[in-house]
Amino acid sequence: VRWWGWGEDGHVVPIPDAAAALLREVLGTDGSIRRRPVALDQVRLPEPRLPAAAREQLAEAVGAEHVREDREARVAHATGRSYPDLVRLRSGDGSSAPDAVVLPGSADEIAAVLAACVEHRVAVVPFGGGTSVVGGVEPVGDGFAGTVSVDLRRLDRVVSIDRTSLLATLEAGLSGPAAERALAAQGLTLGHYPQSFEYSTVGGWVATRSAGQASTGYGRIDELVEGLRMVAPAGEIGARPLPASAAGPDLRELLVGSEGVLGVIREVTLRVRAAPSASRYEGWLFGSFAEGREAFRVMEQADASPDVARLSDEEETRFSLAFATGAGTGTAARLGGAYLRVRRRQSGCLAIVGFEGDAEDVERRRLRTGALLRAGGGMALGRRPGDLWLHSRFAAPYLRDELLDRAILVDTLETATSWSGLDRLYRATADALRSALGERGARPFVMCHVSHLYRSGASLYFTFLAAQEEDALAQWRAAKQAASEAIVAAGGTITHHHAVGRDHARWMRAEVGEIGLELIRAAKERLDPAGIMNPGKLLPS
Amino acid sequence: VRWWGWGEDGHVVPIPDAAAALLREVLGTDGSIRRRPVALDQVRLPEPRLPAAAREQLAEAVGAEHVREDREARVAHATGRSYPDLVRLRSGDGSSAPDAVVLPGSADEIAAVLAACVEHRVAVVPFGGGTSVVGGVEPVGDGFAGTVSVDLRRLDRVVSIDRTSLLATLEAGLSGPAAERALAAQGLTLGHYPQSFEYSTVGGWVATRSAGQASTGYGRIDELVEGLRMVAPAGEIGARPLPASAAGPDLRELLVGSEGVLGVIREVTLRVRAAPSASRYEGWLFGSFAEGREAFRVMEQADASPDVARLSDEEETRFSLAFATGAGTGTAARLGGAYLRVRRRQSGCLAIVGFEGDAEDVERRRLRTGALLRAGGGMALGRRPGDLWLHSRFAAPYLRDELLDRAILVDTLETATSWSGLDRLYRATADALRSALGERGARPFVMCHVSHLYRSGASLYFTFLAAQEEDALAQWRAAKQAASEAIVAAGGTITHHHAVGRDHARWMRAEVGEIGLELIRAAKERLDPAGIMNPGKLLPS
Repeated sequence: VRWWGWGEDGHVVPIPDAAAALLREVLGTDGSIRRRPVALDQVRLPEPRLPAAAREQLAEAVGAEHVREDREARVAHATGRSYPDLVRLRSGDGSSAPDAVVLPGSADEIAAVLAACVEHRVAVVPFGGGTSVVGGVEPVGDGFAGTVSVDLRRLDRVVSIDRTSLLATLEAGLSGPAAERALAAQGLTLGHYPQSFEYSTVGGWVATRSAGQASTGYGRIDELVEGLRMVAPAGEIGARPLPASAAGPDLRELLVGSEGVLGVIREVTLRVRAAPSASRYEGWLFGSFAEGREAFRVMEQADASPDVARLSDEEETRFSLAFATGAGTGTAARLGGAYLRVRRRQSGCLAIVGFEGDAEDVERRRLRTGALLRAGGGMALGRRPGDLWLHSRFAAPYLRDELLDRAILVDTLETATSWSGLDRLYRATADALRSALGERGARPFVMCHVSHLYRSGASLYFTFLAAQEEDALAQWRAAKQAASEAIVAAGGTITHHHAVGRDHARWMRAEVGEIGLELIRAAKERLDPAGIMNPGKLLPS
Repeated sequence: VRWWGWGEDGHVVPIPDAAAALLREVLGTDGSIRRRPVALDQVRLPEPRLPAAAREQLAEAVGAEHVREDREARVAHATGRSYPDLVRLRSGDGSSAPDAVVLPGSADEIAAVLAACVEHRVAVVPFGGGTSVVGGVEPVGDGFAGTVSVDLRRLDRVVSIDRTSLLATLEAGLSGPAAERALAAQGLTLGHYPQSFEYSTVGGWVATRSAGQASTGYGRIDELVEGLRMVAPAGEIGARPLPASAAGPDLRELLVGSEGVLGVIREVTLRVRAAPSASRYEGWLFGSFAEGREAFRVMEQADASPDVARLSDEEETRFSLAFATGAGTGTAARLGGAYLRVRRRQSGCLAIVGFEGDAEDVERRRLRTGALLRAGGGMALGRRPGDLWLHSRFAAPYLRDELLDRAILVDTLETATSWSGLDRLYRATADALRSALGERGARPFVMCHVSHLYRSGASLYFTFLAAQEEDALAQWRAAKQAASEAIVAAGGTITHHHAVGRDHARWMRAEVGEIGLELIRAAKERLDPAGIMNPGKLLPS
């Protein structure tokens, strides 16, 4: 495991020559700087400060072998996997590590852990896959006697599958691949593929209200939750699995997205589908980002959207093709046609559309969608760009590690708004990122894609790069703040799929208003009266 | 206006001879009893008890001409339009009338009204169309200095329409027909048609989390809310219009369905669609309710559902055909084919499926859906049953007035659960209604239809009839209690489209649990610290 980065240590996503050349050109770097992470035993960890009585009570709750205080466990739970998290880890900063990692194996054990933490005033961080990119799993212990990460990996059972109702009840600690394997054995799929799919968990998806790459078709995780169970310090609360109800406010929607500040989600009943027997992923080329967005809007409002729908702006198109054309033997040839077409037009915007289902369904839908995209100015590029995207859909976090090795700042952020407000939001956010980074002296590269379509609007996903400053965290904070302020001013949501965590908490007042914050605080006071659950997250201090 | 019943006084939906004969047969009545409502001036109203200072402050808030204390206004706001409401009104019981009806014309005026009511400890009932069938708008003044209905009819503006994003921002007091007229002028539709459509309001739909007859296609109202604004005693709270967000709990879902206990919904931004240029409604016949349900499940899970999908059980099919075949010149002939087919099979279950869109869309969808229904055992009955249903889709409440004239108990209730639990819920609820009514001596007639489809389950809508006992309210309460307990025991939701109001509040503990109730109470304490908003509703006392 790559404690300082993403995934497994052996897995390397190389940067092809064409991409390296592009990076040198747009960022103005010579590519010679290398910044390698320190060794694990070099990571500076704070002295554990958990009171002995608390440690004993936790060991009683889950068994001594499930309370871990070793270096490896503490470092692995010190942060999530955001850019600033990795900058800190790579430099040996483990100052946010929990005092202990606790691994409960049942609802009762979770309740016992929470009771111990209430008694000894220990802050609790619910921990699934640890892939948060917004500081959602980083312990914040100010004012507490200590911090523990409650790692849910032992809650990994498939509780039940109801094939008639297409419902699967899964424990929260199940990872994405494990959940899909269990469903596939029954001919089913959830179809939820965030970029973190390989390492994130069912509980994490629900706690963070996540969107997946195929959410345009399969729905966001909040649309897939039929019911759930949460263990809070005040007791267990459930939202019964129901297809729909008119019985008052929907409390399920208060627990989904609660990011660990109300309690520990331990079990979720999810709406699943028959596993697709066929799929088709295609590339399309539009003359401009505006043209492509308009075609996507018309498609979505005609109920003709594919399951995956992504549209890159000019900058991201250029970036994607540079990475794709150099990526291994034969790839250049396979994508050559698209590349040449982009070059011939001088610019262009690449779209990826993907259909899943049975063969007849896929064919019927792609013909209808294709007609609309063509009418909207799109040029079909065939299956190669689509298949290439599918092949590398989870590669970006690995690539980030390579860029960090080369002292390059790379981060992403995302938002959403109505179709009529989308262009303004796009320009405002991109301009803010370019200005904030440029003013500090770096030459920034900012790119964007539309990634989730709704009848009323869409999401925008930005990636920004620059040569790292010496104080990489200050540089990142300046860019993040400028972008967030621009998003708020342009009426976008502060996050469409990464959640709030620590990094967006400052903008929650703008997002939901002071009374909105009061409502979340009111729920927290009932479920977590001692205030031990994931302090510092979601709510601004 | 029919103060003792439904809609306009001139509008009569006659009971055809065949239907009268069926009622005599199944209920064992001779049809001779007539129970007419008392005259308006016979209605017994409580002495108004609003403190003079409160009256003055309310008049200052909205203008003296918008504070009504006359008999007509008080009676019109005394109850909703449930069966027990009408039984009481027709007998001259106006004991629940508010002391005054206040008609604010703006957000500021609502805020001033709420401030006055907080100051003088007056209970406030937000009032839209007054069509609640669960006691949602009946003033409950125990422990208060008085009660006022805040009638929102003056908030009836179309605030804005965004055709690009297919969003319409409407004031809460706009009625269903007025909203659809405004949208139609722009080539748009909301497509939300509860049976109360003609008299209910936008704000009422959102406050009660309502479902419409075409919600299988257009979505429930909660799926159509992009944003809303509510005036609460603690201040204004809004859920910004957003297509989606990952920024924490979805507070919109706490305000939708809040039934006036948190504040007054004053404005809603709704997701609309292009108005359909074509439609097609068809009848289908299944051999049994179980066969039809299975065909509907397969259809829904294949993403092939029509916009309207209804399946009647054997009893409701018999009832519908008796009413339809006798309903006016030519109708018998028009429906004769279906009727004969049902008779030839001895039994059968009628389904109505309706498609709306452009002509090509309607045709494509109906062919695909038809193939699935046929494969599931359905026999196509053509357009006549569909058109007849469409023509009479809002008639049932008028018919209820006719049945009340004939001293017949008639009420409806509804629930939902997963497909795998649907048969058990159906049997348990119907059995409970039959036993509860039968044990008291009446011969009950209970019928049901499936009315809203979800991938994971469906709703069941029951209608039950019996000859009225002398104590009609005690009879009704016995049936309601038995059905509600059966629904809870069988795992259904206590209401799928009528909301909670007073009538379902007792079962909210079973619905959301004690901690769930605490969460709603916590929200109420923040938004309505004095507890003046719609007391006695939603939350059990």
